[in-house]
Parts: sequence; C-alpha cells; structure tokens
Amino acid sequence: KNAKKDVYSDKDFEDDEEEYEPVMFDSRQEAANLFKRIVAPVKINQFFSTYWEKKPLLIKRNKETYYKSWFSCEEFDWIMRNHNLEFTTNIDIVTYINEEKKKHNPEGRAYAPLVWDFFQQGCSIRLLNPATYSQNVWKYLSILQELFGCCVGSNVYLTPAGTQGFAPHYDDIEAFVLQLEGKKRWRVYNPLNENEVLPRFSSPNYTQSDLSDPIIDVILEAGDLLYFPRGYIHQANACDEIHSLHITVSTYQKNSWGDFLTKLLPGAIEIAMQENVEYRKGLPINYLTENGVAFEDKETEDRTKFKTKAGQLVKGLIDYLPIDAAVDQFAKDFIHQTLPPFFTKDEKSRSIHDHGERWNSDNNRVENIAEIEPDTSIKIIRKNCLRLVVEEDSCFVYHNLENSKIYCEKEPQYLEVDTDAAPSIEFLLNSYPKYVTVDELPMETIEDKISVAQCLYDKGLLVTGEPLNCD
Amino acid sequence: KNAKKDVYSDKDFEDDEEEYEPVMFDSRQEAANLFKRIVAPVKINQFFSTYWEKKPLLIKRNKETYYKSWFSCEEFDWIMRNHNLEFTTNIDIVTYINEEKKKHNPEGRAYAPLVWDFFQQGCSIRLLNPATYSQNVWKYLSILQELFGCCVGSNVYLTPAGTQGFAPHYDDIEAFVLQLEGKKRWRVYNPLNENEVLPRFSSPNYTQSDLSDPIIDVILEAGDLLYFPRGYIHQANACDEIHSLHITVSTYQKNSWGDFLTKLLPGAIEIAMQENVEYRKGLPINYLTENGVAFEDKETEDRTKFKTKAGQLVKGLIDYLPIDAAVDQFAKDFIHQTLPPFFTKDEKSRSIHDHGERWNSDNNRVENIAEIEPDTSIKIIRKNCLRLVVEEDSCFVYHNLENSKIYCEKEPQYLEVDTDAAPSIEFLLNSYPKYVTVDELPMETIEDKISVAQCLYDKGLLVTGEPLNCD
Amino acid sequence: KNAKKDVYSDKDFEDDEEEYEPVMFDSRQEAANLFKRIVAPVKINQFFSTYWEKKPLLIKRNKETYYKSWFSCEEFDWIMRNHNLEFTTNIDIVTYINEEKKKHNPEGRAYAPLVWDFFQQGCSIRLLNPATYSQNVWKYLSILQELFGCCVGSNVYLTPAGTQGFAPHYDDIEAFVLQLEGKKRWRVYNPLNENEVLPRFSSPNYTQSDLSDPIIDVILEAGDLLYFPRGYIHQANACDEIHSLHITVSTYQKNSWGDFLTKLLPGAIEIAMQENVEYRKGLPINYLTENGVAFEDKETEDRTKFKTKAGQLVKGLIDYLPIDAAVDQFAKDFIHQTLPPFFTKDEKSRSIHDHGERWNSDNNRVENIAEIEPDTSIKIIRKNCLRLVVEEDSCFVYHNLENSKIYCEKEPQYLEVDTDAAPSIEFLLNSYPKYVTVDELPMETIEDKISVAQCLYDKGLLVTGEPLNCD
Amino acid sequence: KNAKKDVYSDKDFEDDEEEYEPVMFDSRQEAANLFKRIVAPVKINQFFSTYWEKKPLLIKRNKETYYKSWFSCEEFDWIMRNHNLEFTTNIDIVTYINEEKKKHNPEGRAYAPLVWDFFQQGCSIRLLNPATYSQNVWKYLSILQELFGCCVGSNVYLTPAGTQGFAPHYDDIEAFVLQLEGKKRWRVYNPLNENEVLPRFSSPNYTQSDLSDPIIDVILEAGDLLYFPRGYIHQANACDEIHSLHITVSTYQKNSWGDFLTKLLPGAIEIAMQENVEYRKGLPINYLTENGVAFEDKETEDRTKFKTKAGQLVKGLIDYLPIDAAVDQFAKDFIHQTLPPFFTKDEKSRSIHDHGERWNSDNNRVENIAEIEPDTSIKIIRKNCLRLVVEEDSCFVYHNLENSKIYCEKEPQYLEVDTDAAPSIEFLLNSYPKYVTVDELPMETIEDKISVAQCLYDKGLLVTGEPLNCD
Repeated sequence: KNAKKDVYSDKDFEDDEEEYEPVMFDSRQEAANLFKRIVAPVKINQFFSTYWEKKPLLIKRNKETYYKSWFSCEEFDWIMRNHNLEFTTNIDIVTYINEEKKKHNPEGRAYAPLVWDFFQQGCSIRLLNPATYSQNVWKYLSILQELFGCCVGSNVYLTPAGTQGFAPHYDDIEAFVLQLEGKKRWRVYNPLNENEVLPRFSSPNYTQSDLSDPIIDVILEAGDLLYFPRGYIHQANACDEIHSLHITVSTYQKNSWGDFLTKLLPGAIEIAMQENVEYRKGLPINYLTENGVAFEDKETEDRTKFKTKAGQLVKGLIDYLPIDAAVDQFAKDFIHQTLPPFFTKDEKSRSIHDHGERWNSDNNRVENIAEIEPDTSIKIIRKNCLRLVVEEDSCFVYHNLENSKIYCEKEPQYLEVDTDAAPSIEFLLNSYPKYVTVDELPMETIEDKISVAQCLYDKGLLVTGEPLNCD
Repeated sequence: KNAKKDVYSDKDFEDDEEEYEPVMFDSRQEAANLFKRIVAPVKINQFFSTYWEKKPLLIKRNKETYYKSWFSCEEFDWIMRNHNLEFTTNIDIVTYINEEKKKHNPEGRAYAPLVWDFFQQGCSIRLLNPATYSQNVWKYLSILQELFGCCVGSNVYLTPAGTQGFAPHYDDIEAFVLQLEGKKRWRVYNPLNENEVLPRFSSPNYTQSDLSDPIIDVILEAGDLLYFPRGYIHQANACDEIHSLHITVSTYQKNSWGDFLTKLLPGAIEIAMQENVEYRKGLPINYLTENGVAFEDKETEDRTKFKTKAGQLVKGLIDYLPIDAAVDQFAKDFIHQTLPPFFTKDEKSRSIHDHGERWNSDNNRVENIAEIEPDTSIKIIRKNCLRLVVEEDSCFVYHNLENSKIYCEKEPQYLEVDTDAAPSIEFLLNSYPKYVTVDELPMETIEDKISVAQCLYDKGLLVTGEPLNCD
Repeated sequence: KNAKKDVYSDKDFEDDEEEYEPVMFDSRQEAANLFKRIVAPVKINQFFSTYWEKKPLLIKRNKETYYKSWFSCEEFDWIMRNHNLEFTTNIDIVTYINEEKKKHNPEGRAYAPLVWDFFQQGCSIRLLNPATYSQNVWKYLSILQELFGCCVGSNVYLTPAGTQGFAPHYDDIEAFVLQLEGKKRWRVYNPLNENEVLPRFSSPNYTQSDLSDPIIDVILEAGDLLYFPRGYIHQANACDEIHSLHITVSTYQKNSWGDFLTKLLPGAIEIAMQENVEYRKGLPINYLTENGVAFEDKETEDRTKFKTKAGQLVKGLIDYLPIDAAVDQFAKDFIHQTLPPFFTKDEKSRSIHDHGERWNSDNNRVENIAEIEPDTSIKIIRKNCLRLVVEEDSCFVYHNLENSKIYCEKEPQYLEVDTDAAPSIEFLLNSYPKYVTVDELPMETIEDKISVAQCLYDKGLLVTGEPLNCD
Repeated sequence: KNAKKDVYSDKDFEDDEEEYEPVMFDSRQEAANLFKRIVAPVKINQFFSTYWEKKPLLIKRNKETYYKSWFSCEEFDWIMRNHNLEFTTNIDIVTYINEEKKKHNPEGRAYAPLVWDFFQQGCSIRLLNPATYSQNVWKYLSILQELFGCCVGSNVYLTPAGTQGFAPHYDDIEAFVLQLEGKKRWRVYNPLNENEVLPRFSSPNYTQSDLSDPIIDVILEAGDLLYFPRGYIHQANACDEIHSLHITVSTYQKNSWGDFLTKLLPGAIEIAMQENVEYRKGLPINYLTENGVAFEDKETEDRTKFKTKAGQLVKGLIDYLPIDAAVDQFAKDFIHQTLPPFFTKDEKSRSIHDHGERWNSDNNRVENIAEIEPDTSIKIIRKNCLRLVVEEDSCFVYHNLENSKIYCEKEPQYLEVDTDAAPSIEFLLNSYPKYVTVDELPMETIEDKISVAQCLYDKGLLVTGEPLNCD
C-alpha cells in the first residue's frame, strides 16, 4: 500500500510527440524538458522532492509508443549487422534458471545470427552501453547528463518470452527502467536494513527465500516507467506471451557526500599543515606503545588525551576546506567521463562542426571562407561541455567534445589558454544561455577578443547566433 | 641572550664511561638511559618540556672523549678498507666555496685513498647512514628508536681544517649534533617566519644575506652537543687549526599530527559511509554549476548551503575516527623502516641467536640440543621489535629482526599465527619487561603454549631467563 | 633514355570501367585483375620481371578519370565532417619551403574548416592510412594484399597549386603513385650507390645539391601511374595552375630474405642443438683470451681454428632449417597486420555477415533460421584470410576478419579447433577457390563435419554456394 | 669396466699443502696450478683430452685432508651464526624418501639451531653459492674462472648418516664433486641416449627403474674427487655410519657452440644485409601460399627453389661472421656474471686496495700520500678482470672488481676512457703477466701516460711492481 501513491496511470498525457527533438537554446533547460517528459505526469520538482533517492516511482501510461524513439529490436538487429560488436565487451548472453545465473558468451564478434540463435534458445541478451552505437540513446543521455551533473549510463535488456533474465539484487545507481517493447513483470523490495539504504556497492544475487513481500509487483508494458533508488532490490520476468525489451538509464554512481569528502579532505589537511603549526607538531613520544587495536580496551589518560587531540584537529579542518577546488576536481572527472555532446543540424550549421571552408569539387577549390567579426554573436555550445581550471600559472579549458562514446577511452582533452583569456571564458560561461558579441569580451584589444573567440570556435566550443558570413 | 640559558657547560658530569654498554633488561628504559647520557646534565623530562620541537640546546662539556665511542676517523678508514662503499650511495664529496655548493662524486667504489685524496684537497666528506657499517652507531640508534617510536637516522660529516662544508639551510628533522673530533663553528638562526616553524620539508640553501643575526654562534668541540628543532637554520665552518668530525642524529621526519590525519581520515570516511546514511546521500543536483574556483566570489544561498553541509559532515567524522587502527598502520611502518635490534652477547646466549644446537667438529655431530619447557621463563626480546596486527581473519606478527640496516631494503617481515595465539602474544607484550613462564600463557593445553613459545623463539623474538637446558 | 621504355602513354585502354567491382570467386585472381588494371597496359608478368624491385615505371594515360574511384577531395571533405580525425594521428599539415620541411599540426580534432584553412595558406595535407575511413581505399588495398602476400598501405597527399610538399628522399617500400586530381611534377633519381639499392630504411631528406640529373622528370596528370622501387630518390612539386591529389600505395616493407633469415635462424640453431652434439659441445677453454676486437690483427692458429669451426657450424645449419615453420610465423604476422577483408553484398548474403536469423519487427520475432546441411556447398571466404597453425598439441586458426582498419590495433584473432579438424581445414584451403560440400570434409561422422563447418561459418570464415535454406 | 681406467687411487701425491695459497704473478698460471692440484695426479692436458666433456673421472686418494681447506661443517656453523642466511635464498632443507623429493624450507632467517634441528631429523642441507660467505670458496672459484673463461659456481651438500639427499638426475653443467667430510656412495650412469649427451637442460628426476647398471659405483671418502660431464646421471647416498659433506664445483653452463651462434648470427645477417643486395631483395610474391607446415608434404618447383635460395643465403653468411664482436659480447657477459677477484695481502699492498693515503689518528691527519711516476712498473691485476670494448665512438673498460658475490646482483661495471687510451690498455693486456713502466705506454705525453695509469689504478685495476713511494 505504501507503494500505491507512487503509481501513476494517467491516460491523458498531453505530450504526444514520440521522438524528442531538442532545440537547444539552453542545454540545462533542454535537459529539464527531456526529463520532464520521462517522468511526466509527475513534475520535476515533485520527483526530486518525493522520489529521488527516497522511494520507487511507477508510471503506467497505456501508451506503448511513448519511449519508442529510444531503441528497438529492429535497431538492435541493424547495429549488429553494421558494427563490430563483440561478446563480453558489448554483448552478454545470460540465462537465469533454477536461481542460477550463467553467462554463455563465446569469444569474438557478435554476428546478428549468432545472437538471435542464443535468443531463440531462451537466453537473455544484454547490450552494454548502447549509446556507443545508437544515435538516439547517445542524444538523450548526453542531454540528461547536463541535468544531473553526473555521468548517465544505460544498458538494454532483451528477454525471450517466458524466461527470467537475472537474479534478485540491488544496484549502486539510481535506475530508470523504460519499457520499450513487450512486457515484463517487475517486483521491487525495500532495502533489507538501514545500512543498505543508498548503498555504495551493488549486492550479490539473492535467492527468493532471502526476500519478503515486494512493495511493487506489476506488469510493465511498453511506454511505462519504473524508477527506484540504489539499494532497492528488484527482479524481473518476461511474460509467457511476448518478449521484453527495456532500457535502464542509470546515474549517481559514486557521487555521494562521502565521495566528495574523500577528495576534499587530503587538500584540507595539506592547507591546515601549511597554515597552522598545530598540524605540524610531532606526535607524542609514547603514542605507539599506548595506542593500537591491542590496547582498545584500556582507558588511560594518555589514550584519552591522544583521542581528544585528534578529534580537535579533525574539527579544526573546517577552517581549511578547499571546497571550490574539490568541486573543480569532480567537474574535471565529469568532463572526462561523460559522453560527448550530440549536436543538432542547426547547431552544426552555426559552428565549426559543419560551417565554414569546404571543398567545391565543381570549381576544384576551397570555398565558403568564414570569419569571426567583432559583432559576431557567440555562446558556449553547452553549459557543461567545458570547465575552466587554473593550475599553477596556467589556465586550462577541459572539454568533452572529443571524448569517445566508450567510457574514458580517451585521455582528458583540454586546451591551454593565456591567463588573460580566463575572464573572457568566465564571462561566456556566466552569460550562458544568452549570446554575447565578441566585442563584449573583457579583453583589451579587439585582436585579443577575436583571437580568444577564434580559439574556442576552432575547438568546436562555440556556436554563433547566425552562421558566419562567407565570401 | 635568548639562547644563553640553553647552553650548558657543566664540567662535573658524574657519568664517566665512554662507551655505553646496554644491559637491556627493558629496552625502553635502556633507551632512556642512553638518551639521558646524550643530553646530560639536562634531565630527560626537562629536555622534552623545554627544548624538544621548541628551541635549540647547546651543551659545552670540555670533555673531548664523551661521545668518542660513537665513531672516529680511524673507524672510517677501516670501514672503507673492509667494505664496498660507493660514491653517491654511501659517500658524498662536497665543497662549499663562495656560497656555491658542489658535489664531486666520481662513479664506483670509494677506495680509502681516493676519499682521503679528496679530503686533502679541501673537500668535505659525508658518510651516509653510518649504521650500515659501524657497530656502535647501529647499536645506539637501534636503542634510541625504542625511545622515540620513530625512525632514527644519522649522517657523519668530516670537514678539513679551514673549510665550510655546507650552505645555510634548515632540515625537516629534529637534529642532534654530536661533535666527535676537532672543532667546528656553528651558527643557528631562528625560523624566518611562522610558516617555517616545524616545517614539513627542508629548505633550499640560503645565502648569508638572507639571514639576520644568529641566536647561537659557538665553537663546538669534541664532546659537545648541539640540538635544534626542524626549521632552525644552521651553518658550520671548520676552524683553521683542526679538522672536524661530527655525527648528526635525526628523527621525527614526517611524524606529525597532520601526517597522522592523512592516514586516519580515509578510514574515518569509510566508516562514516558504512554507518551513517548522510554520508551516502547524493550531492545536490546543481552543485557543479554553482561551485568551483570560477565562482569563488559569488555568495549564493546554494553555495552557502553546500559549504555548511560539507562542514557539518567533516565535523561529524569525529564519531568515526579509527584511531587505534591508524596507530597500528604507523606502527607497521615503524617496524618496516627501523634498524634491526642490536643484541648483546648475553641476550644472544639466551635466545636462538647464539644458543642451542651447534656442530661439534671433534665429535663430528650436532650437540647442545635445547628444549623449551613449561617452566621456561620468557619475554619479548625488545618492547618495540614486534607488532600484532589483526587483518580480516588472520593474525600477523610484524617484526624488525630481519630488516636490513639499509633503509627499507627488505619487504616487511612477518609471521602469521593462529588467532588463538593472539592473547598469548598480547600477554607477552603487556608483561614486558617482566619474564613469564611458558605455562602462564593464556592458552588451553600445554602443547599449545609450548608451540606458541617455540614459534616466537625460532624467529628470534624471545629471550629466556636462563639459557635453555641442553642435553 | 634508360627511363624511356618505362614510360607508357597508350591512349587506347580497353578497360573502361572507372570503379573496379570485384566478383570475388577467387580472391587471388581478383587481386590479379585489380593489379592488372593498375599497371595496364603493362602485363602483370612483364611488370614483375622487368620493373618490380628493379626500376621505375611511368604510365601516361591521358584519361583523367582512370583512378577516380580511389579517392577525391570531395570524399576527403566528407570524411572530415563525419569522423573524428585528429591532427598527427590522422592528418599532417606540412610545408616545404627553402629546402626546409616543417610540420604545423595543432592538437586535437581536425575539423574540416581548420584543415582547409591551412590548405588555403599553402600547406600540404597528408591523410595517413585513408583505408580507415574510405570504403574504396579499404576495398582495393584489402584485395591487393591477397596478391602481394604482404601488408599494403597508403597515404594521400593533397598539395596546393604552386607549392612543394616534401623534400627529396627515398623510402623503404615499393611505391605506386596514382595521380587522382590535378597535376604534379615528379622527378626520380637513381639510388646514390650500391648500398642504397633496395635499402632497409628510409633516407633522411636530401638537398638539391646532393642530387645529379633525374632519370624521370614528368608532369603526372590525373589517371597516370608512377611506380618506383625502394631506394629511388624522388621529389614532387604541384604545378602553378592547379592543386594535386595523389595516393601512394606501398608494400614490401621489411619483407626481404634477410628479414626471413632473422626468423629462420634461431629456430635452425635450436634444432641443430637438439639433433647434433657438435652444436652442444663447449667452446674451447681459451677462446676468450684469443678472440675479440682487440685481437683482430693477430693471426694465430687458435684464432684460425676457432673461425673455421664457427664457419663449418654455420654452413651445417642448412640441414636444420625449419623453413615451413618460419613461413608460418610470417603468415601469422601477415594475418595480424593486414586490413580485414572487404565483403561484397553478394558474399554477405551467402555468409553469416548478412544471412540467417534476423528480427522481424512486424511479427515481433526472430525469423529466417538457417541450417548447414551435409550437401551445403562451402568455401573459405578469402584465400589469405586465415592460417592454420599447429602449436604443441593444439590447432589454431588465425584470421584477419576481426582486425581493425587501424594497423595492429587488435590482438591477433584466432579460434582453437580440435586437432581432428585440421585436415578438414587444410582440405578447404587446398580446394579454394572451388566449393566443396560439407559431406566431403575428411572427418568421420556427419555430425563432426557439420560441427567444423558451423564453427568456421559462425566466425564468418565461410561462404556458401547458395544462401542457406531458411525456415 | 669402461670406467676402470678413469679411477685413480695413487697414494703418493707429492703435493702436500692443504690450503692452496696463490702467489698470483700470472692469474692464468695460478688457475692452472690450482686446477692441477684438484685433478692430480691426472695432468691438466690429459684431463682435457681424455675426460672433459667426454667421460667421468674418479680419483681415490686415501688422504682425507686433501680438500679440507675448501669448507667444513665448522665453517658452516660459523657462517649461519654470523650472517643473515635465509631459507630458500641461501639454504634448502630437503628429504628424499621412497623416491620422493620434498623441500621443507620455512620462511625467514636460517638460524643455526633451526638448521641443525632439521639435520638431526634426517634432512639434507644444501647451501647455495657458498662463495657468498666462505672466503676460501670465493678465493678458489674466482681463480678457477680465470682458467675456464666461464662462470664457476658451487653448492655444498650436507647429508645425515643413512639418508639419501636427492633423486637420480643429470645436470646441465660440468661437475666436480670434492668430498670434504665423511663418506657417500655415488653411482654414475651413462647418458640414456645420444640426444642427452652434453644436454642443454637438466633432466627431471628419474626413478630407479628408469636406470640400468651404473658405470661407477663407489664410496667417495674425504679427499676424493669425482668429475662427470653434463648429461651423466648420478645419485648419492650417505653411509650409515657417518654424515657426508661435499662441494660440487660447476662450470660451462650455456657455453656451447650453439649458444655462440645465437649471439653471432643476428650480427651476421645485419652485416650481410648492409653489404649484399641479395639479402635485401624481397621474398617471392607467392611464398606465403606455397610454404608452411600445412604444405610440408608437397614437392613443388616453387618450394624447392625457395628452400634452395634460403640455403644459399645461409651458407653465404660465413662471409659476414662478426666473430670477434660476438666473442666480446660473451666476454662482457663473463665480466658481468663472474665473482669479483680475491686479492692476496701482497697484491693489496701494491694497489689501491690497501696502499696509499690513510688516516693517522695519532697525528690527526692523512698520511702516506702516494704518487704514480713515469718509472713506476705496473700491470693489470688479473688477466680476465677487465675487457676493452669499443662501442660506436666510445671506449669502455668493463671489469668485475665491484661485482657482488651474489650472481649478477649488480649492473655491469665499467669506466669510459678516451679512445686515445685504448692502445695503452691493449698494451697492458698483451704485456700481461709482465710488468711495464708507465713510460712505456703508447701515448704521446708523459702526462697522458700517468693519467691513464692513474685512472686504472684508482679503479683498483692495476698492481705496481713495488708499493708506491710515499711521503
């Protein structure tokens, strides 16, 4: 009953489009629009205040095409025929029979007929990280990461009629299950105890006897959504009459306050030691012989003093927390780990991605020579596609435009800029999503302004308000 | 004048022995005895309350043989002829002329005539880590590390008459300069500013013009002591009429409260995350776009909330500090990094080091077969030579008996014991320096008791009250 | 004049097709057909007997579309817009001005407008390994490697009108220059001396003054061919009126007899030592003190005996040469280093690459289930796409189907098969290009025959005579 | 019976000294003297022509002190008490019971009482590489390596009365068994077949049933020698009444003609490719499809031609063999791998090892300043302690003086000298064992001559005819 109010089955969704086409004036706004559509009719604010990291949400729509644009068996077949997918790297073949999970991956390339043959024999298929090959999955996830400020991943699961794909377990991520085709029965259970609320690591597999009654037990149909926070145990069975295809969108892995402290505190100790002699003083002469697990039961004055002193110094660290620097470290990781942005045709036509010089094979020469002018209006191409980091005396613009769609396949990408250019980049970041003219950049000469703009433009980091004038 | 009261020149030291011969009933007591002799007539308590990490101490004794047993030029000559010392690894040849420091190390073996030839030409000689080759230096330092609970190192400096050996600088260790032969003029200066009090890293070299007036300016003669805390700038010149030989005994490198927090806090965050869901909760959705060095000047409500929350969580860590476990980590490092103990003849004759089975070449057979009995009285051979560490389900006795005299040349040495044996080892540790009988060990059967004792005995970790009975 | 008879300008080529479309009944025959077309009107036999590794060949065709299907500026523009090319990895920007060569590569992605901008400013563009992105270059090179039994690589050079792209030099590969667009003046010079005939390493850059008269000095126009062996010095200038685009196809790098001996002789010594005690006997007691560069001028009896004995043993190795095993090692390298085969639509429709099980989204199920039958006619999909290697007791089929188009990006790909299956694989290799039925495979039971065929089919290594029957 | 004439039992050895004390005028002559004593009464020439690498030699002396100076149980006891020996690294504890070999090594330090306790319980003790700790073993082996031009190693075996120490097997080295104490029954068997004559690798253990009748079956008593070439199977049992102690001296591991070819031929191919175009020509176009293990049974014309050509090129290599360079490579390995020389007191007093500047603690200064003069007579300290190697434009003197007594523990030691000095070093090498004066060195100025001599002297590589004059 607790779960009841978390179940929506509104049959009158206004939103009718099946494929979400971003306009991308403001990437954070677009991300909100896309997410709004995913959790509709629940409002975004309501979602974050009531469900996010708190409890599951089930939305029954009775509208089977609702998430259709994300992915389909047909696209899956096409991908396997046109890309070199490999077992284990890209595709897992699994069965879950008599409470035992087994992998059946051969080695080498996953040719479509091989995969379908496994499927015919009752195996479930997991497609890992479909954004690598599916344009729409890439598009949607790269937009959502602008909302969450965190990596957004996904897996696709295809299960033959009448089988179960995996054992009951919980994960270490916030999970959005979008049912794409067919049906699947889902059962969700509360975390087993307090220590497994919002857990840091995924669970091992459970057997049925480990579990009590589910808080949700529902047949998910195409178009339906099921969200549950990390720590909620779940299991799913395909129904007898039809296969099931769903995508699980996941986020907020290792993105907790504790993870943040892990980056924050070494820097805090470093600063405290520089600025406060108390942290540089030597440990007491006798501490080794008084403290240690072997002495845990002893209560001596020396032990108490030692513990008290350590506690004071820990508390004292709050005067030395380099919070902004630690956030920048997280931001650098975000830039390194995320998918590269997906650009619309329109964006491409107003940026280096598809505007400017090109070969004209009729005239046998380069044409369309484009120039940035003082009155050219520009903005950053995405709110979160770049990060300005000042390290020692240099200024680095880290960006994710040249990231691979395979997680962390490439080294962090950056360009080094003059420290004089830093205020211009901050100005662009803070003006977003508004356009500014090159002339407005806070630098001294117009040559410098154009030079900074050109430099960012050449890396693909800027869009112009209008396509640049060409010769 | 500030320095005056830190200068002793008592001509009536009672203690007359020149070589300190430990009796070693209690290694911590012996260490205190040895240290008492070094800083006499200052009392140990007075030393630690008045000088240690606070200010320099100068003791003029007018007793040139006082530290003679530590080391001499004669021993140095002998060592070079009988060991394969190498330039750079074991010996540095340096000059300091016109405020410029130069190294003149050739490659390869430091044959005595080569080294003396450099010396004749006015070079200073630094012998690195003399404990590797000098019995007495090894003996003294290995005893002192029982007092300090920290590595104790040393270097020997030999400077020709009329030259300066090194540029003014400060070090990152507590320094005890023991003048062994000849004379040297020492000048000591206060730390340049507050941030260089008890510094974490050694300074670069200074020029004379960087410095103001010294707080100590003295001719150190054989038998004299000069102590100064890390951060005090010092320089030294040999006098014109005679060479100078001194040993610098050093300790407390990277042994500060800040170093301790560095080991303590990752464990604290780990525990906090396990036990308190606040540390597992996700970071706020918008934190990346509100915080960062580029936003340092902005004061928004979100920024304030973020900072406040981080501060609360840091403070909250004091409920989760694994202090004893962190001390054990430091203790393991101590065991790994320290010199092996030096054993007296008497200790050897009551332990595996020189008692028990031996070959009798007259009878062509093994003789002197020795057995541990229930009434054999035993104790640990040094207070700080072993450490009991429980990791997961196993119980490890880390010890330094097989360490090399070269810093960290060997992997940490340990033996794994049954968890049932842990109380017996704690019993031995806590009984120290008293002997106990094997029968007193807290185990069930006499066979088990003998087995534990035998195991420690065979590793050289026990001495018996009397030499074991032999056949 | 020497070069004259190596110049063809036949205006009546029969062959009129502009794009070569392989039928691929026999990959070695197809390779010959393609190569025949490249060097026409010279016959293949004539080419190999008269020019290959001997002297340059120039063919003037007056037919500018002849090589058009290989590559064009238009395709280049398209590739840059649709793939993540990077400077240095994929594209070099170079100038050669006043006998000085310079690279101008920025970091990061080579967006088309950036590259065209460099071109406009007079830089030459080198596209490295265009087979990675161009379908036709991949198709042609993967066919040619079947002919040469060796890696076939390529680079594309685009030079603005009126500039020179590179300094005079020679390469370490056999070079086929196919002029694709515009014109370029080429000058070719004889090797400077005997030691630079068929050299093992490329030369440094020469200046004009190092060179005497060229043996070829010609304006290469679109459709013309210039071949020259490794060691022939060459230089090229774009003409003033038009840009130049050519592709250089290269092969036979480190594929000499000497390279073969390097793999052959260690095995020969190994075998000789196993089988002949002369190779296991000890060296003479005194050889160290009699031989060595310091004794080169001495002629002693011992030296002569030592040299004679060494010579005899070297000669004796010819009884122990493991020639076939060394060829297999080269073949394994070939399989590892070559491009994956390019398959025609027809081939795909008769193999796992595009036949068999597929998802029918109307019926929501897998259809087109295909089975190999005893009378199915099969053959290897390429003569040189796989190699059977027996190592110890196992049997490995190395193949290049899953190779990346980037040189050696993937580990060697292989499948392990039962040793019983080896004769069937040899039978398929030797029957090529003829089809055989599954039933003809030399194994005992029909189940075994189908199993072997299925195993190779599932890896994409077989084509069937007709598409397999489907349900 | 075959073995009979290989057994000596001469009771009248002239040579009576028990410890061999080298005079060391000529290290090669000294080595011959020492070896002569080991194999007496067999003459050295007779040994090498009749037994070396050919068949076993047994010498029964009835003189139990003959090899006494090498090693004893008493010295073994002393070593364990005064050095940190470790199980596995330095000492193995083994049993061989019921045809099964077992190791019983604990971890950590091998305290004497632990080792003797194992011995008492019937275990055999193997002391690995005793030269590390025993002065005499080091002295003898370092001398012998001057004779063999190859590493000389050793192991000591101590076996309790009435036990067998190891299983029947053969080794990959020439073995000299010197019985030191007690008795042991040895049985030696012929190699099992032709391929195991002078084998490259040691055998696994055999069981008694693998073996036929021994060719030697003898009780070896203290003072006796048993030599057998690699490949001869052997086993040994201690007798019931007394323990056995022997040392096995071994040499000529991987020092065969085949090993030499392995270093020689890569260089030969390299030179052939530089000088002869035949080696640079490409392999035939079709070789990959005609050759390979799968085609072994085919005899085609192409295959025959390919094989013939390969054979010719292999034969042709004898014109390009860099024999002296390959010997230098072996010599460099010899210098790297051998024991450092053992110097006599007399040698030390005429070299930097114990002559020249020293500290006089009565006068508190350096005395005994020594100078090399033009008429100083000098020679290399050992024939084989250094090797002159010219690499590119530099000249390196590799030497073994600073080697560790642990095999290859240190990097190769060398000094770089001016190429002008090379003839002087060759002059010294070729003059050995005669002294020359510094003035005789083939350099232009007397300053240069003294400089070269000083440089070698300072590295310990020279002895002077008389101790240098001192102030």
